[in-house]
This record gives sequence, structure tokens and C-alpha cells, in this order.
Amino acid sequence: MDSKKPWSGRFAADTDHRVEGFTSSLAFDRRLYKQDIAGSIAHCQMLVRCGLLTAEEGRQIVEGLREIQQEIEAGTFPFRIEYEDIHMNIERRLIEKIGPVGGKLHTARSRNDQVTLDLRLYLREKIGDLSRQITLLQQTFLELAEQHLDQILPGYTHLQRAQPVLLAHHFLAYYEMLERDKGRLQDCLRRLNVLPLGAAALAGTSYPIDRAYVAEQLDFPCLSQNSMDAVSDRDYVVEFCAAGALLMLHLSRLCEELVLWSSAEFGFIELSDAVTTGSSIMPQKKNPDVAELIRGKTGRVYGNLMTILTVMKGLPLTYDGDMQEDKEAVFDTVDTLEACLRVLPVVLRQMEVKGERMRAAAAEGFTNATDMADYLVRQGIPFREAHRIVGQVVRYCLEQGKTLEDLTLEELHRFSPRFEPEILDQIRLEVVVDNKQVVGGTARNQVKRRIQELKARMES
Amino acid sequence: MDSKKPWSGRFAADTDHRVEGFTSSLAFDRRLYKQDIAGSIAHCQMLVRCGLLTAEEGRQIVEGLREIQQEIEAGTFPFRIEYEDIHMNIERRLIEKIGPVGGKLHTARSRNDQVTLDLRLYLREKIGDLSRQITLLQQTFLELAEQHLDQILPGYTHLQRAQPVLLAHHFLAYYEMLERDKGRLQDCLRRLNVLPLGAAALAGTSYPIDRAYVAEQLDFPCLSQNSMDAVSDRDYVVEFCAAGALLMLHLSRLCEELVLWSSAEFGFIELSDAVTTGSSIMPQKKNPDVAELIRGKTGRVYGNLMTILTVMKGLPLTYDGDMQEDKEAVFDTVDTLEACLRVLPVVLRQMEVKGERMRAAAAEGFTNATDMADYLVRQGIPFREAHRIVGQVVRYCLEQGKTLEDLTLEELHRFSPRFEPEILDQIRLEVVVDNKQVVGGTARNQVKRRIQELKARMES
Amino acid sequence: MDSKKPWSGRFAADTDHRVEGFTSSLAFDRRLYKQDIAGSIAHCQMLVRCGLLTAEEGRQIVEGLREIQQEIEAGTFPFRIEYEDIHMNIERRLIEKIGPVGGKLHTARSRNDQVTLDLRLYLREKIGDLSRQITLLQQTFLELAEQHLDQILPGYTHLQRAQPVLLAHHFLAYYEMLERDKGRLQDCLRRLNVLPLGAAALAGTSYPIDRAYVAEQLDFPCLSQNSMDAVSDRDYVVEFCAAGALLMLHLSRLCEELVLWSSAEFGFIELSDAVTTGSSIMPQKKNPDVAELIRGKTGRVYGNLMTILTVMKGLPLTYDGDMQEDKEAVFDTVDTLEACLRVLPVVLRQMEVKGERMRAAAAEGFTNATDMADYLVRQGIPFREAHRIVGQVVRYCLEQGKTLEDLTLEELHRFSPRFEPEILDQIRLEVVVDNKQVVGGTARNQVKRRIQELKARMES
Amino acid sequence: MDSKKPWSGRFAADTDHRVEGFTSSLAFDRRLYKQDIAGSIAHCQMLVRCGLLTAEEGRQIVEGLREIQQEIEAGTFPFRIEYEDIHMNIERRLIEKIGPVGGKLHTARSRNDQVTLDLRLYLREKIGDLSRQITLLQQTFLELAEQHLDQILPGYTHLQRAQPVLLAHHFLAYYEMLERDKGRLQDCLRRLNVLPLGAAALAGTSYPIDRAYVAEQLDFPCLSQNSMDAVSDRDYVVEFCAAGALLMLHLSRLCEELVLWSSAEFGFIELSDAVTTGSSIMPQKKNPDVAELIRGKTGRVYGNLMTILTVMKGLPLTYDGDMQEDKEAVFDTVDTLEACLRVLPVVLRQMEVKGERMRAAAAEGFTNATDMADYLVRQGIPFREAHRIVGQVVRYCLEQGKTLEDLTLEELHRFSPRFEPEILDQIRLEVVVDNKQVVGGTARNQVKRRIQELKARMES
Repeated sequence: MDSKKPWSGRFAADTDHRVEGFTSSLAFDRRLYKQDIAGSIAHCQMLVRCGLLTAEEGRQIVEGLREIQQEIEAGTFPFRIEYEDIHMNIERRLIEKIGPVGGKLHTARSRNDQVTLDLRLYLREKIGDLSRQITLLQQTFLELAEQHLDQILPGYTHLQRAQPVLLAHHFLAYYEMLERDKGRLQDCLRRLNVLPLGAAALAGTSYPIDRAYVAEQLDFPCLSQNSMDAVSDRDYVVEFCAAGALLMLHLSRLCEELVLWSSAEFGFIELSDAVTTGSSIMPQKKNPDVAELIRGKTGRVYGNLMTILTVMKGLPLTYDGDMQEDKEAVFDTVDTLEACLRVLPVVLRQMEVKGERMRAAAAEGFTNATDMADYLVRQGIPFREAHRIVGQVVRYCLEQGKTLEDLTLEELHRFSPRFEPEILDQIRLEVVVDNKQVVGGTARNQVKRRIQELKARMES
Repeated sequence: MDSKKPWSGRFAADTDHRVEGFTSSLAFDRRLYKQDIAGSIAHCQMLVRCGLLTAEEGRQIVEGLREIQQEIEAGTFPFRIEYEDIHMNIERRLIEKIGPVGGKLHTARSRNDQVTLDLRLYLREKIGDLSRQITLLQQTFLELAEQHLDQILPGYTHLQRAQPVLLAHHFLAYYEMLERDKGRLQDCLRRLNVLPLGAAALAGTSYPIDRAYVAEQLDFPCLSQNSMDAVSDRDYVVEFCAAGALLMLHLSRLCEELVLWSSAEFGFIELSDAVTTGSSIMPQKKNPDVAELIRGKTGRVYGNLMTILTVMKGLPLTYDGDMQEDKEAVFDTVDTLEACLRVLPVVLRQMEVKGERMRAAAAEGFTNATDMADYLVRQGIPFREAHRIVGQVVRYCLEQGKTLEDLTLEELHRFSPRFEPEILDQIRLEVVVDNKQVVGGTARNQVKRRIQELKARMES
Repeated sequence: MDSKKPWSGRFAADTDHRVEGFTSSLAFDRRLYKQDIAGSIAHCQMLVRCGLLTAEEGRQIVEGLREIQQEIEAGTFPFRIEYEDIHMNIERRLIEKIGPVGGKLHTARSRNDQVTLDLRLYLREKIGDLSRQITLLQQTFLELAEQHLDQILPGYTHLQRAQPVLLAHHFLAYYEMLERDKGRLQDCLRRLNVLPLGAAALAGTSYPIDRAYVAEQLDFPCLSQNSMDAVSDRDYVVEFCAAGALLMLHLSRLCEELVLWSSAEFGFIELSDAVTTGSSIMPQKKNPDVAELIRGKTGRVYGNLMTILTVMKGLPLTYDGDMQEDKEAVFDTVDTLEACLRVLPVVLRQMEVKGERMRAAAAEGFTNATDMADYLVRQGIPFREAHRIVGQVVRYCLEQGKTLEDLTLEELHRFSPRFEPEILDQIRLEVVVDNKQVVGGTARNQVKRRIQELKARMES
Repeated sequence: MDSKKPWSGRFAADTDHRVEGFTSSLAFDRRLYKQDIAGSIAHCQMLVRCGLLTAEEGRQIVEGLREIQQEIEAGTFPFRIEYEDIHMNIERRLIEKIGPVGGKLHTARSRNDQVTLDLRLYLREKIGDLSRQITLLQQTFLELAEQHLDQILPGYTHLQRAQPVLLAHHFLAYYEMLERDKGRLQDCLRRLNVLPLGAAALAGTSYPIDRAYVAEQLDFPCLSQNSMDAVSDRDYVVEFCAAGALLMLHLSRLCEELVLWSSAEFGFIELSDAVTTGSSIMPQKKNPDVAELIRGKTGRVYGNLMTILTVMKGLPLTYDGDMQEDKEAVFDTVDTLEACLRVLPVVLRQMEVKGERMRAAAAEGFTNATDMADYLVRQGIPFREAHRIVGQVVRYCLEQGKTLEDLTLEELHRFSPRFEPEILDQIRLEVVVDNKQVVGGTARNQVKRRIQELKARMES
């Protein structure tokens, strides 16, 4: 009667070892050990408080758990795959250490509420870490924006040069995206920050426990209100993975730009040697590997989202074995996000901005054509008509190999008599940029104002 | 010089008609006409207020737009595919109606800020509609919970009967999931509820406009703070599609249960004739088609999420042509969610609950075994040991073809001397259910309390 | 007793109209009318042949079906949503036309085997069409390759200029990808080209029918060998959608290159006015919309694959209502592939190649550095050492603003004494390209040989 | 000048260590060591044969590589993360061992063609392994089919009992699905079984090498025909992942059925203790964990497909850094498929079929109603009319609590005068099953014939 599985009472045969390896989650869920022990300690203290354990039993259990945490962190813990998962490994070890009293820890608790507790504690911590990392990346953009406040480059639509913008303005666009990403993580946190313990297997426990006390110990602002929901839903996992996918979407756009800008054709930036790699065969190469890898890692984070959505589709209530597959997708998403967010500030801070190339690209690209049209509108020509006129001016320039600035007033008059001498100043890039005076526009003072606002917000 | 495209100034050749059909989005974006016109009217009124249009020009434009709305709603609007999209169709029609002054509407605006405005207005409205529909579905669950407050059925884990629960408790689990779904939609709304107009093509407009006034007219609580971000991000679309995918995930679980429960094997419910379909060949069939279809439609909503994530991956700033592909995924998601949410309350209200089958299933399934173990724990046996004892009792019952209730005290004593006579009462299903007294547990008074709370919240 | 549904015998109540709209697939499956009628005619002729219908009955049914096809094609067919799908609509109409004998068509058949037959016939036809379209696109690449056989441009890795290649070689890379795409579609066709009729609802029919005769009529080389498999699997749908996703993946890479090459920064091509669009606000813009849209449509085809994978996951045998959701994903995939394949040859044939820009980019990019290293290897230096030396030469050039060709022998000797005078010729781009003499290399004669091979294959 | 990276010639600064960890793929690509060494040996032998290495150099290199393989397999190889990947680790180690001559191995080769070679070799081997595993699973189904040739159970549509089928027939449906899965893997193999070496970085090598000789050594039937295609496409990875997703789709359906059939409600099978797990809290539980986990793992394989599709979308030619992300998705797919295929035969062989429950379920479910309708058709009633009549008979039975077999001829005559006494035999389940005499039908002799065919095919 010395069977190793805690649930082996009704079983006549031992588990097939091929099955044991297949169903064990220990290889990946061991990283939840800290959360598992913290949750167990809070649960144990509540059991003592409610009279379900004696003070002495409680003391032994807590001490045992703390020793186990030390063993794990020292690398001396004897992990055993046949105990299925981290929860059982810890519990069995506890019983080895302090005897049968260790078995009382599981009073009023099930693996079902325990595992979702651990995952919530884990994500709560990680959302905190990730939010701090996002803030550091935002800070990097803020610093870069300040450094490049006068730098003009072409803004693009359809990868065609469209209108001149400030590089600072471009960087701040990413600041804004990241701010919403952080908001989504916080909303996810708010929804998952709910204590599930007490739901037990699915129906709630029948022991007279004090859930509020556990919530307080573990810093949960509220309790789950339905035990079946508590153990069976993983929407917080999906929500986290979706927020992560969006963050990666934003980073993939940034990295696409770093790759483009590093190309010889754009030549807008040079990434530092320290963050690029070479070719094993082509000696001249300097590859923006980090940016490409981040762009590529978008794929795995999207894939993780699809994984967890697929796992949960169509499962009947409450807990099903499929749900063991929730963890690896989360862990890989967390690891990938952390790695990308760690390396990006390094890349951005060390890159050299080639200001002249940027400015020259804006000058050659007719990026002031819209402003010429707007000028005509201010002269009283309907917008669509003005647009048509300037389109013809551009075509003329392309045929003549000229820029708009190269044209004389005489040439302009061939297209419209409404051009006055001041047009020649009105289409200078600095003027064009500074004319975008609207809130959120690229005019220097608008961008400066926004930087001040964001810095103030950062500091507070 | 009478070319049909508004941007044809610099173009020497007309658009190839195969390309015209390929790039036109009119077939699907026409459903944004209302938002487009509402946005244009607000923009026009602001232009008048800022002196960029005369009052008379403004009047003509607004009147023209209102006529156009009537034409569209009456089905008399002459849609023309060569005008690419709904925005151009409306503008061209306006010029046809009121002459060149119609062209002035586009002052200080671009299709880039216009199209994201329209999509935000659309989603804002639809999130409102969907939230109301979710509430109706929650209300249905609340009513069903009240009706079936005493009904016991087996709660399942791993699709094995686990512990007895109240059907009301089971229904309320879905109430909770839906509440979080609604919360996600509201968070998405909060983030998208930002006025982008003024961003123009990408850099901000150079006209002295009043964005705050437009925001007020269109009921936006705030303004976008970076023009490049405003026209190039579609994170609100992804966030909406992800929230929709999660909602469908929840509905797919419900529908899986409806399908299972309708099977002859479970026999827990009978769906009404009005919501089932028959077979073209098998006369006895009554198929839970609606539930299956909803479960299946989960696939398309997941697919739509993957679509928009893929579209946006790795696009450089700002607007790229790929982003035209954002709309159909959103529209299909909205349509699917609305259709599923419309039909589900009908299905749920008309289903017949077969209470005796449910109760019998709970009674036969050893769902009270946990409580027998808990009893032993209260008798002073460590939980793991108690679990092992009851596992052996269950194995004995299976071999003897008995239920736990069938056992005599003598038989129980073979497994443990700690069983006392009261055990025979303690494992009655009603007692077992009512013992789950913890907050969120399935005890009748807990469930009742929760129903009262939720009803009160509904009413306020 | 005059209920409209063919399966209403056991039903006491009519279908709720909300449910009717929800479960009807008529809106999209009507496009299978031709396949449905062709399948029915073959089935009917077999029934006559087997004595299950009289010749006269058969004649009436076939004639009725042909009239129905004409009605549908003339737009006069009275589609009725309450008849659920195209199959029922046709059958009901047949009975309206020829009386109760029409009901005999369904002998020995079920909607379950009928619907998978129709979808197989549809995909068989579409795979043929798509394969022809792919061949046309390949032909376009072949012609472009012939036209640009001497054109050098930089080949890229990591979007960094790497080695000079022929534009013809670059185009032929797409030829090869498309060839494998066609192969995947053909493999899919082979697997789906199996007659399912005879499987009936799921167990096989009990009528003495002749499946081989039907297969012959409908040109199927073989019969399904398990009735449950025949009606319940949709792997051919998934396989088709996966092959389509891969095709779009390839097109997305091509379109990315068209977008890059059209940018002012690359300037390698100019797309014709006929296939580009302008901006509503920026008069100078010429947007590569078609290429961007194809790249974007990759998203929807990926999404469709995810849809059908999700729909089918975890469904028990045999046919489940969820599977009605298989069709729209397929139809949208087919439509998207056809549209993209139709427009791409137009874009490619009308684009102007800017040969000088391409050649200049290759010359400036140290794309001959590898060949300088290879030269040193031929001089007896280990490859890794040679690579290191040339890396230093490149760094020197970057510092001096020179290209490799600008260096004198004296300068080269600072890095290695092994450089001989012939090095100056060995790094000329034409020589570098022609040195890639290996099978599949970019040397002109290799590329020419490949073009001849492929043209010969095309003609046969 | 003793920098550790093989490409560090042009670099002035060392790699940032944070970047080093980020870009290194050693942690996962080390599992390609065997393929890498095999490819290198073949390449080396060819270099000797072509006179690019001396025989002695070749001997040293091959010997060095073999020693390295032994070191890796003995666990003594000094992996160094700063050498980025397995390829560089092996090469650097080779140089350590045999001196600078080791550097000559890289002559006429690049990491770009090397890495795709290794991945092709890996997948070629794994497709072989997986195909063998699939065959074993098919064999299991074949054996089970033979064992249960007389066992009747209800076939289901919409999870409603539909028609009686043989359990053997049900099992063989999976045989057929798996056969197509194997076919897809083989088609994938055929397409990837192409030697890429010689493509070098992207343009082909300029050394006079003999690709055909390498192909022969490594058993490749053909050579890649375009160097840019060879190094830049990963369609074989996508195709493999898609074939894997389909295989998992099929397994998920099987596992759904195992879960359903193990439920108390169905009770069709009992999984052995050796392949099930218990509950930590509910002593009576016996959970079909393995089946649930396989069903859940479908999610990760779908996710991996989405990952690689996303990674490759829109990448310009040729090799991009993103493509480093192709491997983990493949490895995880291979591992998951292997694990599932390994454990499933164990589960299937040890399960106990509860024949009486199956047969009883078929008898109670009106699964013979179609045959009653078919009987009426043979009596001359149009099918639709017959269907309607039997629908009414079923409704009558439901109201009376009877099965079809319970009815007397008198009762039947209330619905139609065409019922003759033989009807009572015609609807016996054995007769009903054996009436499905069509090819692919569930009649016993048809199923037996199919088993014989498949066994014969297995043996050959």
C-alpha cells in the first residue's frame, strides 16, 4: 500500500511509464514553485486561523515549505517526474520532511484552484515586470525625441515619401502605441487579480475557511464569485497572450523600420557594431539581426495566442486535462516579450542617426506638395482643384528632373495664376513642418510640448 | 482633363479596370456611410466655426450630405466602383449635387484620418450594441438560475462526474465569464474612443482648426496626441477582434455543453423543435444545429483575429495599403457575434431541463466521494490518507455495483474505523451541495445570494 | 400537415424564424448549384441504370434539373431561405416542377455525402483554374527573365546588399516557388478526387447502387472506402487552405519587394500609372496599392486556414453541424487567390525596370567582397582568414568613402601581400556574376540554360 | 586581432553580451549536430574530389568532425554561446582541433545553404520516423477492427444517434484519415528532398564544385535549380507544420471520442488504470488525461503553423534574420507528434470495450428509422414522403416511450398501409448493418473485405 501517486486509492494498476512521461508537466511548471509556495503558506496560515490546523501544525508546514523553497533555489530539490507536477512534488517533499501532517496542507484545496492561483500570481508579477520594461523603452523614445527635435525626415504612406515630419514626432508615435499596450496589460491584470482559492475542485470547499483572509495575505483585492468559473476559465491567459501579440505587432513595425533605415538604400541610421552581426561568407555585411529577430519573434507570440485559443475552444466545464497546455504558451510569451524589451533600448540608444540623409530624402520627395496645394486653397481654390493642379506640377517636375523648390514663379504660373511670391518660402521644409500646428501635429512646438507632458508624467 | 479620380493630377494613364476592381473597397466599406456622413458634418461645422468655410458653404455641404444619407437609405444612391470607396463616393456625389464648393469639405482632412474616424465611430456603436446583447444573455442565465435553484446535476472535471452542483450555479458560471467579456469590450471602447481627425494624411493639418470642437460634436472624450500614431495604428481593431474571440471561446464551451446535454447519452435537456433541425435522411433525428453552428463560428472569429494580426505585422509607419484589409475581418466579427448573441437566448429559454436525469446522474457518479473523504478529515485523518481510503471504497463499490449510499456502516468499517453513523446523512446530495458554504460555492444560499446581488446590479 | 421542411415529420413546432436565418447556408452555398446539379444528374442516371428509377422518372428528373440550372443562371430561380441550403432549394423546386417523382432523386443519398461531393467537385474545378493562373504568372516571370538577362542588381540578405545577381535569376526564384505551390495544389487534388456518394448519411446506403458508374460519370478515379470517413472528414479543405496560405506567403514576399523597389530610396522599378493609385491629399503620391493589398490579403488567407482548423478540432465523428462553416473560408480563399493571380501579371508586365539604379546599387554595396575573399582563398589563404582580411578592407573603404574597385594594389597590399594585379578584374560585377557557374547559380549561361529548360517544359 | 566571431573583420566593437544571448540559436539548433556533421563530411569529400582540398586536408577534417560528433554524444563538447549557433560551434571546435586547415571546410559554402541543408536532412529523417509511427497506429486500428468485427454501436451525426455501425468500421475511418496524413508527409518529403548546397550565400558559389556528387553522398535525388530560392524559402517547413496540424486535427477527433466514450454517460469504453490519472481531491475520479492532453496539444501544433506562416510573411529575398525563428516551431511540432503517436497505441490497446452498452445505445436510439423509411421507398413511396411518415412514427414512439421494434403492425398501419409483416425483421440492427452492402458501407462483409485488403497492403 505504498503507491506513489496521491490519487492512487481506486487504481488497481500502476501508471504506464510512457504515459507518465507524457502527462507530466513538471518540466515546465516547475517555474511556478515560488508562487506555489507563497500560495500554500497563505492557505496554511488561514487554516490555522480558522482552527483547521493547530498552530504547531501550521508552523511545521510553513517551515517545511520555506526549506523546500531554499532547496529548489539551491538546486538540491529532488524533482521526481512521477509526481506529475510542481504542486505534487512540493507536497510529497513536504510529507517526506515533516511527516503525515504535511498532508493536511491540502485541506480545503484542490489542484484545480491551486494551479489557477499560481498562474495568476505568476502573471501578476510578470505584468509588473513587463510594464516596467515597457516604460524603459518609452523613456528611451522620449530621450531620443529630445535629442532629435530638429531632425526632419520624410513621413511615409505606402512606403512613399509623403510629408516631412520630425524624427522626434516619429519616435513619439511608438511612445503612444506602447502606452496603450501597457494599458491593456493593466486591464488584464485587473481582471485576473482575483483570488480563486476556495473554489476547491469545482464546487467550493465544504470547510469553514476564510477566503478574505487569504486574499489579504496574497494581496488580492477581490474573491472569485463562482467556483465553477474560477477553476475552468483561462480567459486571463488568452487576454494576456493577446495583449502580448499586440505589443509584438507594434515592435515588429518598429523593427521593420530599423531594418529599412539600416539598408544602404535608406541609410537613415547605422546600428552599432555591438548589436549587429556579420556574415560567415560576405565580409562587408553588417546585419540588423536583432531587429529582424524581434520581427520574427512576432510569429511565435501570435502562435502562442492561437495555441491557447485552440486549446480552450469547445471544452465543457469545468477543468479539463487539455488545460495543462495553457502554461508553455504563457511562459514562452513572457520570455519572448522580456527578451525583446530588454534588447531594444540597447539597440536604439547605440544607433547613429544620419541626419543629412534623412533631411535630403525629405527634400527630394515632393513631401511639400500637399502644402503647395494647401497654399492654393488659402488663395481660394477648392481643395480638389488645388490637388489636381499640384499633381500636374509634380508631373512636370518629374519630367524636368526638378524639385518643387527649383521652380520659378513663371513656371508655377503655367499651372495657376494664383501663385504669389511667398509660395517659395511656404514650401521650405522647416516651414512646412512648423505649419502642422494642430494638437498632435508635427510642428516643433507641438512635439516639444508633448515631450514635456510625457516627461512630467514619467516623473510623477 | 476630366479624369474621374480625385488624385489623378500627376497620372498620365487611367487605372486598369482589373486593378480598379481589385483595389476598390466600396463593396464592404459602404456600410460605414452613416459614420462617414456624421464625421463630415461635424468636420464641416468646425470649418465654418473656424472661418475656413462661410456659413453658406457650410449649410450647403451639410444639406447635401443629409440628402446623400437619404439617398443611400432609400437605395437610390448611385454607387460607382471607380470611386474606390465610400468616402470618395460620398464626396463626388456631394460635388455633383452642390458644385465645386463640395470639394472644400476635404479641407484640413485626409482619407487617412477620415477612415480611422469612421471605423472608430462604427466600433463604438457596435460595442454598445454587443454589450446590450451580452447583458440580455446574462439576464437569461439569471432567470434560468432562479428557475432551477434546487436542481442538482453532476459537476464535471475531465468530463467525469466530479461533485454535485446546482444547475443555477452552473448557469451563473457563464454569467461571470460574460461579465468579463463585457469588461474587455468596454476597455477596448475606452482606448478607441479618441478623435483622430486633425492628423490629416500623417503629419497633422496646417489649417487652424479646432479639434476639441469636433471631439465635442462627435462625443469623443479626448484627442489623439500624435498624428502618425493616429493614422497608422489599428490596435483597437485587433483588441476588438481578440475580445470577440474570447467571447466566442466562452460561447463555444456553452454550446459544447448544449450539444452534450442534448445527446441521448446525457439526456439532460431537450432543445425545442423551434431551434433544432432534422435530417434529410434519418427521420428520428433532432439536431442541435444552432449550438453546433455557434461552436463552429468560433473558428471564423479566431480566423478574423489571425487575419488582422497578420495584416499589420511588420508594416512600416504610417498608413499602408494593406490596412484596407482591416475592415472585413471586423465586420464579419461583429455580424457573427451579433447573430450568435441574438439566437442564444431563444435557444436557452425554450430548452426543457430534464431534472430527474440530471439528479440521477449525480447520484450514480460517486460525486459525493470527496465529501466522504472530507468527513474522514474532520474525524482527524490527514487529507491524503482520507483520499486514499475513499478511493478504495469507490473501487469496492465499482466491483460490487453499488453506490456510496448503498453501503452499510459495517462495510465502511472495513476501510476505516472512524466512520460514524452520521456519515450516511453526510453524503446525501442535498447535504453535500449545501455544505459548500464558502463564498462562490454551490450551496443553495450562496447561489441565492449571488442571484440577488446580480439582479440588484442589473436593475441599477 | 403541409410543413415546408423535408425533415419535419417528427417535429411538433415550426422553426423559429431567427433560427431559420441563423442556420441557413443558402447565402453562400448557392454558388455550388452547378456541382449539385451535375452530381444529381449522375446519381439519377445511376439510379435508372440500377433499376431504382424508371427511365421515364430519370428523364423527368434530369430534364427538371437542367431547367433549374437555366433558371439559376437566368436569375429567375425562386431562392427560399427557409429551405436552408442550395441542395434543398433545388430538390424542392424539382418537386414543384415535376411532382412527387422529384422526391425519388434523394433515394440512396443523403445531404451528408451530397455536400462533400459538391465541395470536392468545386475544388477540383478551382484547383484547375488556379493552376492555370499560376502557370500564367510563371510565364510572366519567364518572359521578364528573358528580357532582363543582362541586368545586374544587388542580391540581399538581411536587406543588406550581399552579392550581385541577375534580375533574371531573381525572377526565376519566384518561378521555382510557384512550381512547388502548383505541386501542392495537385497533391491536394489527387487526395480529394475521390467519390463520396454512396456513403449516404454515414453508414453507406442499403440500396443496390453502382458507385463505380457514378464515379465514371463524374470523372472520379476512385471511390471512398469508408462511409464514416467520407462524410466526416474535411482534410481536403484544410489542405487546400494550407496550400493557398503558402501561395500567398510567396506572393507576399514578391509584393514586399515590389513595394520596396518602388520606393524612392530603392528606385529599382516604376509601376505603371494604370496599376497604382494616388492620394486624396498629397498630389505627388503614386502608391503601389495593388502590391500592398496582395501582401495584406495574405492575412485573410492565413485567417481562413485558422478558421477551418479551429472548426474541425475535436469534433466527434461523423458529420457535425459545425462543418457548415467550412465553405465560406474556402470560397474566400479561392476568390482571393484568383483575384491576386489575375492582377499580378498586369502589374509585372507594365512595370518599368530602372536598370541603371539597380546596377549602381550593386556597385556601391561591396557586393563583390565575397569574391575578393574567394580570390584570396585561391591564393592559398584559409577561408576564415581571407574573410577577416576583406572585412578589414571593407572597413577601410567605408572610412575612406571608397568602393573596392577604387582601391589600388598598394592599398590592398596593406592588408595582404597575396593580392596580385588580376584582382582588379576579378571583382568587376560582370565577372563576379559569371563566376557563379554552379548549377542553380546566377552566372548568365546558367540562368539562360534554366530559362530554356523551363520554356521547353512550358511548351510541352 | 583575436576576435572570436568569424565575421568580425569589419567590426570595430565587440558584440553586446545582451545581444549575444538574444541572437544565439545554440540552445535549440544544437539538435541539428548530426545533420550538420553529415553534411560537412559530404561537402568535404566533394572538395577533395574536386581538388579544392588535398586528400590529407580532407582526411584531417573528416576525422576532426567525427571526433566532434563523439564529443557531442558523450556530453563533453564545449558549447559556447558566443559562437551563435551549432554550425559555428562545430567549425570553431574543428579549428581548435586540427588548426587553420579546419577553416577550409567552409570553402564554397555559406551558413545560408548549410542551415537549410541541415533542416532538410532533419525533416527527412523525422518524416520517416513519423510515418512509421503512423503505420503502427494504423496497425492498432486494424487489430482492433478485427477484434470487434461484430460489435454494433450507434453512428452519430450532430452527436445524435443516427444509424447503427460496426465498431470495426468506426475504427477503420481513422485508418483512412491516417493514410492521407501519411501521404501528405510523403509529398512534403518529396518536395524538400532537394540538395541546396552550392547555393552558398545566395548567388551560387564560384568554386568549381560537383553538386551531383554531394547529392549522391547525401542521398538527394535532385539539386535545387535556383540559388536565391534555395536559401530563402522555407515552404517545406510550412508544409510540414500544416501536415502535422492536420494529423493532430484527426487525433483530436479520436481523443474527443475517447473522452466521450469514457464518460459515465456513454460508458462505451473503460480506459486502463495504466493510462489514466486520478484527482488530488476526488477519490472516485479516473480521468482520461492522455486523450485530453493530445486533444489539447492540437493547439500547440496549430500555433506552430501560425508561427512559421507569420514569420515568413512579407520577407524580401533572400535570407532574413527572422528565419532563425523557423526551427523551434518545427522541433516542437516533431516532438509533439512523436509523443502523441507513441502513447496512443498504448491507450487504444489497453482500453476495454463495453460491448453491451454500445449495442444497447444503438437499439434505443431509433438508429433504424432510416431503414424503415427505405423500406417504405421500396414499397413504392417517394423518399421524402417515406421520411415524413417515419418521422411521425418516431414522434409517436417518443410519446409512448417505445422503440420502433416495440411497435405492432397495427400501430404501424396507423401511419401507412404499406407496412408488411417483414418490416419487423427488416429493422433489426444486425439486418440494418448488413444491408449497407455498398463499397465503403458498414455491412460486415464489406468491412471484413476492407480489413483483408489493408492487412495485405501492410504486409507488402
